Amino acid sequence: MARMIVTPWEVRGEIDYERLIREFGTQRITPELLERIKKHTGELHFLLRRGIFFSHRDLDWILDEYEKGNRFYLYTGRGPSENVHIGHLVPWILTKWLQDKFDVKLYFQMTDDEKFLFKKNLTLEETNRLAYENALDVIALGFDHRKTFIFSDIDYAKTLYREAIKVAKRLTLSTAKAVFGFKNSNNVGEIFFTSMQAVPAFLESVKQGRNVPCLIPYGIDQDAHFRVARDILPKLGFYKPAAIHSKFFPGLLKGGKMSASDPRSAIFTTDSPEEIRKKVANAFTGGRDTIEEQRKLGGRPEICSVFKYYEFFFEPDDERLKEISSSCKKGERTCGECKQILTEKIVKFVEEHQKKREKARKVLDKFILRD
Amino acid sequence: MARMIVTPWEVRGEIDYERLIREFGTQRITPELLERIKKHTGELHFLLRRGIFFSHRDLDWILDEYEKGNRFYLYTGRGPSENVHIGHLVPWILTKWLQDKFDVKLYFQMTDDEKFLFKKNLTLEETNRLAYENALDVIALGFDHRKTFIFSDIDYAKTLYREAIKVAKRLTLSTAKAVFGFKNSNNVGEIFFTSMQAVPAFLESVKQGRNVPCLIPYGIDQDAHFRVARDILPKLGFYKPAAIHSKFFPGLLKGGKMSASDPRSAIFTTDSPEEIRKKVANAFTGGRDTIEEQRKLGGRPEICSVFKYYEFFFEPDDERLKEISSSCKKGERTCGECKQILTEKIVKFVEEHQKKREKARKVLDKFILRD
Repeated sequence: MARMIVTPWEVRGEIDYERLIREFGTQRITPELLERIKKHTGELHFLLRRGIFFSHRDLDWILDEYEKGNRFYLYTGRGPSENVHIGHLVPWILTKWLQDKFDVKLYFQMTDDEKFLFKKNLTLEETNRLAYENALDVIALGFDHRKTFIFSDIDYAKTLYREAIKVAKRLTLSTAKAVFGFKNSNNVGEIFFTSMQAVPAFLESVKQGRNVPCLIPYGIDQDAHFRVARDILPKLGFYKPAAIHSKFFPGLLKGGKMSASDPRSAIFTTDSPEEIRKKVANAFTGGRDTIEEQRKLGGRPEICSVFKYYEFFFEPDDERLKEISSSCKKGERTCGECKQILTEKIVKFVEEHQKKREKARKVLDKFILRD
Repeated sequence: MARMIVTPWEVRGEIDYERLIREFGTQRITPELLERIKKHTGELHFLLRRGIFFSHRDLDWILDEYEKGNRFYLYTGRGPSENVHIGHLVPWILTKWLQDKFDVKLYFQMTDDEKFLFKKNLTLEETNRLAYENALDVIALGFDHRKTFIFSDIDYAKTLYREAIKVAKRLTLSTAKAVFGFKNSNNVGEIFFTSMQAVPAFLESVKQGRNVPCLIPYGIDQDAHFRVARDILPKLGFYKPAAIHSKFFPGLLKGGKMSASDPRSAIFTTDSPEEIRKKVANAFTGGRDTIEEQRKLGGRPEICSVFKYYEFFFEPDDERLKEISSSCKKGERTCGECKQILTEKIVKFVEEHQKKREKARKVLDKFILRD
């Protein structure tokens, strides 16, 4: 297996989440911590129950403060280099659930500057356009516009740059190189950028003129940015941001995470039913070479990308998920029928999402922060 | 003599302007070029006649374009880390003369972000405040508000950041290190900053949607920024900015340029008559140890800081300047009387400037660009 690489710009190899917890110095989300959340939320989202959000920093402190009446706010974001795929929605879905259950604000950052700086062939006009296209996918999930503030870095730069240079002043080139692995061939915008990503982690404190705890749900690949932010923010007089980390949504092909760079590996929210059918039909499964072998030996849901789709997204009911797994293992469920059931679920979801996405165009302005 | 160091953040040692022309790869401003300017302006400003503006890049091209009817615009700026001193006014005075004679626009950049990033003990609030205080000094010189656009980087960041990242994407860490001498201990904001300083060199082209030539008058210490800008702007489809470079206004003490970091070396526009009198009284001159020696050997205007004040600022008449020099050399003019005459000229200028500066508060808003 290829060496594991997990950075904000590259995820490669077989992912060992336990090793990431050790290497990044995060904490496992324990059953005790889940129980503590449940005390406030009444139930647990399946993304928490199933350990898809598996790691955290200072989530216990966030709950301490919440219990004292010091309400946190949420911050997450998106690098708008492409249309949104199903994998992107996973952390946003938990973010919405947290917003609803705890009744808190959310800052949602569209890093169109980042994607312009890091992607050779993308223009600023294109990443900026995608920022607003991707925002429609966020809104389509049902976020409350009174509590949700979406912004493009480029169009909110007056507010952000002023705060970002305070972070930048505290971040040496030496540290940036060590944390992100920058080389002499990196451009100076790439090196500066993490300062912009740090800002929403204290922006609510700036606006309120008092310290407000911040909780950031994100894919564990983004952790380097927030290790830097956690180091610097206390020096500026702010709390360290807390975090909960999700695993990567596996791609439809063998190995690797769902990736916009290989369209066959991901279902985009803009895909047509035909595209969805084709992609699922070609998906990598844990099935055997022949139906006879499948009946005899059973399938392997633990390596199956189709099963992961049920687990991460399309089967929120734990009992039913267990049935899928056990009937697969017993060889009762063939890959063909399993794919067909999933296809219909995805097509239905995407069709509904696309309708909500189009409706979102009309209310987009209610969500957008601009200078 | 100490080794010559000339960077945007440090000027040290004995300055060899001929060597700077060779090392920076600029052109000398020749008598022929001055004649060409005079064809359009009718006369030559003493800062040009006396070679205080001594070097350029593509000034001949600016005149070519002007003669073809393709009018240029001006861009200069100020790092607001302190109050303004007389030395700062020198390039601005020529800039105003150029604006008047050629009837052109001026962008004036206040790099409050830079000074915050590079000065350990300055807060953003302080550099931002100084940006507007220093702007009063610019306005007091009589710039035309219909053609003059002053902005703080912090308060105009939405416009600037969008363009700056286009520059940043083209500038590798490797080049930034080679040009500016950055080390691992520099902060990531310092490394990014030159991208912000490049923007006004093509901002008018962005606004007009067509290429407009840009001429930048500046102290030669800022050259590194514009070498970078000249390299990158054509890659973005813009003209290389042209430039004219001034020498450093010498300080009142022995050696070095007038510097805000040693208040005794400079006359600030906010100084009281008493402060001015005291500073000039303590100034380094080319006089002899005793009056008798002075009468016998004569003074040395070529090393005298008081004489430099006449040359750079307070005696625009070439004939009278020559008289001061020759009477000094002949031992007819003592340092005491020479200082007294200068003191009165400075006090008068500063008092008038301060009045204009206060009036400028009322019209400041007419000059300021904000997002």
